[in-house]
Amino acid sequence: MTTFAPSASPVTVVGLGLMGQALASAFLAKGHPTTVWNRSAGKAGELVEAGAVLADSVESAVEASPLVVVCVSDYDAVHGLLDPVGASLAGRTLVNLTTASSTQARETAAWAAGLGADYVDGAILALPQAIGTAEATLLYAGPKSAFEKHQATLQALGETGTVYLDEDHGLSALYDMSVLSIMWGVLNSFLHAAALLATANVKATVFAEMATTAINVTADYVSAYAQQIDEEKFPATDATVNVHVGGMRHLLEESEALGVSTDLPRFFLELAQRAVSDGHAEDSYAALIKQFRGRAA
Amino acid sequence: MTTFAPSASPVTVVGLGLMGQALASAFLAKGHPTTVWNRSAGKAGELVEAGAVLADSVESAVEASPLVVVCVSDYDAVHGLLDPVGASLAGRTLVNLTTASSTQARETAAWAAGLGADYVDGAILALPQAIGTAEATLLYAGPKSAFEKHQATLQALGETGTVYLDEDHGLSALYDMSVLSIMWGVLNSFLHAAALLATANVKATVFAEMATTAINVTADYVSAYAQQIDEEKFPATDATVNVHVGGMRHLLEESEALGVSTDLPRFFLELAQRAVSDGHAEDSYAALIKQFRGRAA
Repeated sequence: MTTFAPSASPVTVVGLGLMGQALASAFLAKGHPTTVWNRSAGKAGELVEAGAVLADSVESAVEASPLVVVCVSDYDAVHGLLDPVGASLAGRTLVNLTTASSTQARETAAWAAGLGADYVDGAILALPQAIGTAEATLLYAGPKSAFEKHQATLQALGETGTVYLDEDHGLSALYDMSVLSIMWGVLNSFLHAAALLATANVKATVFAEMATTAINVTADYVSAYAQQIDEEKFPATDATVNVHVGGMRHLLEESEALGVSTDLPRFFLELAQRAVSDGHAEDSYAALIKQFRGRAA
Repeated sequence: MTTFAPSASPVTVVGLGLMGQALASAFLAKGHPTTVWNRSAGKAGELVEAGAVLADSVESAVEASPLVVVCVSDYDAVHGLLDPVGASLAGRTLVNLTTASSTQARETAAWAAGLGADYVDGAILALPQAIGTAEATLLYAGPKSAFEKHQATLQALGETGTVYLDEDHGLSALYDMSVLSIMWGVLNSFLHAAALLATANVKATVFAEMATTAINVTADYVSAYAQQIDEEKFPATDATVNVHVGGMRHLLEESEALGVSTDLPRFFLELAQRAVSDGHAEDSYAALIKQFRGRAA
């Protein structure tokens, strides 16, 4: 028999994939009476042993707590599960941690509003094993009042990494995509560099230290460039786009000469050359923002 | 009249572009008797005021110091300047900080060896204004004995950031390209993210803090992936390539829906999908190294 902290608010977790299980475990670990439910049975065993209540239907799961956290494969699954029990959501707060687009998040917010439920869209920037630790960051967007009502409970998932973004429900999805985009950008460049250095028998682990320094140094540029982007002025206080183009040509030639894939340098170079064609040769790299804006510009 | 530190070894700087001027200034600031030379006159004024000696020919510039540092626009310029005075280089150490490819660096090393000169190839990971400060990193490759002979002098350019890499002269160029590649990867992703968030009126300066965190978190992955690359084993202890592909599809769809350029997400997705086609669906992201190796694999 688990003893629940008297102050710990009840919570329901719908969806017991790896991430859902980690969420429920983290709530239980902080003493929250936790009700769980999953479409297919058999995933709740360990959680029930740890003190969770396995609801006999999604409806009773929703009705067990003022806060319902859902984390499933996609938004079709969210609606497949919750549409039939919409009436039960009235007066509760639904926190949706399922990965989605900003459009889906905003649409789901409208749907929840129609049911009389508070809706908070969230994004998890962590692996399941990090949930509940200092490594986990979770982003929330939607009504601040709804977030604050359940903030103490949500902090079980990431004590220091519980971040409220904005009233706009789409922002957790956009931040999520933005952070992932940065991750892929860093990793692709690291892999290209590792391939380049391997031609000179430099091990990736030997390069990793300098790569880490390079990554962190670049992080410092980001703030300066962010300011230029917001001001829509791109003075080249460091290198000009032209200088970058020269460096990218070097990277392309080096990659070609050493037989390493030229995809990444070509991608870099074409992008920067487009900025030069658009008249940004003597601007800072931040002027490339225009190449990314597309028709949203 | 400048007083030179009695222990400070003389040095010659050939090439007085913005970077060459910064190099000469940094040597002067640490009390090194500094001789300078530039193809076109008129760039040495401030340096001479600060105590530099302007040589009347490249030959007398070279002959003024046991250490000759050259930093010009490219290797054609290096050879255009130094080939005619090759005999004067015998017995001296030439440190070439001109941006180059690893092949050019290795060829120039062979040329210098033929002249009886020690040759160290270097790369500058800093803007001119950072030279001589804690912000500057300079990489050196070539005979360790030659580097060590002049290390105390070279540290004037970057006290803590003076890094000796390897006997292989090509490595300063390869590390330079690798670090730049990481920088472009980070910046492109940041710009894409800024464009995405701008559709929801999020300012780049508001996003910058989380972007910095994301960049730094990714830096932590790099060490783990480096080990997988060296071991040529890619267990998905975090997300599989398949999971990344799913996320990239989200990024592509989100970008399309919001009218932001799809170039970057398409590039990410095609690369990761190739890794899936090659049988790495259930491996870690580090398995994408094979996509970067090209015919060097």
